[in-house]
Amino acid sequence: MLEKNQKRSSSYSSAREALADRIRLVPDFPHEGVLFEDLTPMLADADAFSIVVSELSDACRDMGAELIGGLDARGFLFGSAVAFDLGLGILAIRKRGKLPPPVHTQEYQLEYGTAALEIPADGQDLKGMKVVLVDDVLATGGTLVAARKLVESCGGQVVGNVVVLEVPELGGRERLAGSPLVVINKAEDRN
Amino acid sequence: MLEKNQKRSSSYSSAREALADRIRLVPDFPHEGVLFEDLTPMLADADAFSIVVSELSDACRDMGAELIGGLDARGFLFGSAVAFDLGLGILAIRKRGKLPPPVHTQEYQLEYGTAALEIPADGQDLKGMKVVLVDDVLATGGTLVAARKLVESCGGQVVGNVVVLEVPELGGRERLAGSPLVVINKAEDRN
Repeated sequence: MLEKNQKRSSSYSSAREALADRIRLVPDFPHEGVLFEDLTPMLADADAFSIVVSELSDACRDMGAELIGGLDARGFLFGSAVAFDLGLGILAIRKRGKLPPPVHTQEYQLEYGTAALEIPADGQDLKGMKVVLVDDVLATGGTLVAARKLVESCGGQVVGNVVVLEVPELGGRERLAGSPLVVINKAEDRN
Repeated sequence: MLEKNQKRSSSYSSAREALADRIRLVPDFPHEGVLFEDLTPMLADADAFSIVVSELSDACRDMGAELIGGLDARGFLFGSAVAFDLGLGILAIRKRGKLPPPVHTQEYQLEYGTAALEIPADGQDLKGMKVVLVDDVLATGGTLVAARKLVESCGGQVVGNVVVLEVPELGGRERLAGSPLVVINKAEDRN
């Protein structure tokens, strides 16, 4: 455990190395032919967690974040640590029905049916705030696009998206339509 | 935003002051006569978030935490920042059905029916680890008790529970049955 003001170090030289070492690979989940990458063991490893959060923080700082938007629920596990690291607040972007009223709501399409994201409609003011959205995985991008619409409908400005992993074949990058994106586990985005 | 290695400060002198200032009070939610305390605006406020996390971290450090257990989903918003602050990992204790197999499962009773908590059954080893559980609110204590059983069934040791708020009339403190507890928003627990 770190004592107060103690310097942070990691046995890993990069987040990519930590991810390669600590991701739990689960074949044929959620259906046959898919290799699921479970980040849970990486989060529980102090060294891996520290260096992954640090690289996420660097990306958010470079984008000029004034507030971190974390996506319910796995995005909270990264966004909260990033916000604390940068001395910023964490905007918890909740799934529908989790927050007491009044709320702002943004619906989005799923493969079957719709889902929605919500944030409180009072008690906080996003006007003019530069928000970076943080999540664990970029898949179809539907959630990140909905989160951007929600933040922007409240007067905030989404200046970027930062994720740990990407599933490129699901087209999320295209769906973000030019909104800046950093993927930690991808060398060509790291400069 | 903090630059790297910049000193952290807050406009609040204590977490209690930050909470009093930034909690969103919602009357008659989830049912008539209940005054719901929504922590969302507090999380989004950099100064309030920073000092609340710092006091949570102090409590976890005092309990000898080697790993932080965060409860799905709002516990992630606090536990992740605490873990990062202390240079520890965050054990994401998930609701049923969120994780790929194999998992360890602990069921618990709700008012109507049952729920369950899960963690991966491979890729991480809790044997002998001192775990402090972090959540937003202590209500009935059912989730924290289930999380303790789950961690202990995997060989870990729960050395304490740290929450931001408590709803004393729901009996959670009694249900924890002597497992150490710190409530941030309660003066008599802060020494």
